[in-house]
Amino acid sequence: MPKIANKPDSARRDAFLSENNAWQLAGDRDAITRQFQFADFSEAFAFMTRVALVAEKMDHHPEWSNTYNRVVVTLSTHDAGGVTARDIEMAKAIGRLANGEV
Amino acid sequence: MPKIANKPDSARRDAFLSENNAWQLAGDRDAITRQFQFADFSEAFAFMTRVALVAEKMDHHPEWSNTYNRVVVTLSTHDAGGVTARDIEMAKAIGRLANGEV
Repeated sequence: MPKIANKPDSARRDAFLSENNAWQLAGDRDAITRQFQFADFSEAFAFMTRVALVAEKMDHHPEWSNTYNRVVVTLSTHDAGGVTARDIEMAKAIGRLANGEV
Repeated sequence: MPKIANKPDSARRDAFLSENNAWQLAGDRDAITRQFQFADFSEAFAFMTRVALVAEKMDHHPEWSNTYNRVVVTLSTHDAGGVTARDIEMAKAIGRLANGEV
């Protein structure tokens, strides 16, 4: 796993959010969240499987939920108590998967 | 998909809950919920993958969330507005997967 400073970085978080409107600040905590919608459950779970592989590789895991064709991903670094550079990195990686860019 | 009556069945639901203490009534709605805990994310997602295959086969999908090694599964039949025989059938199938019986 790459060595990235493990501390909340609100400036980086806010810069990311301003450039990526699909992601939002989670209401009541220092976390970012995004909802993804797919054609059906099969497509949604295929996406989840790819995210799971990225998460395991990064040793950084999302909080997420799924209902049929919808997936809600929330990212925050538990140990750090907020959104760190690792969350931003993961958000970008997940966004690329959702867009089919990877 | 087997033909099962698609209507809420509170008697069957309550009988299932009384025999399967790991499942509970979801607080504010006619749904049943259970939390599963695994050694790590990899084990948790392996379980989710097996549940996903069952769900697709049954054409009946859970609402679920995952945080690292924990998975919370909630079952209810959206179209019927409550817990039906299909949810009980799926709960049993999921329980067998979690116990490594299948």
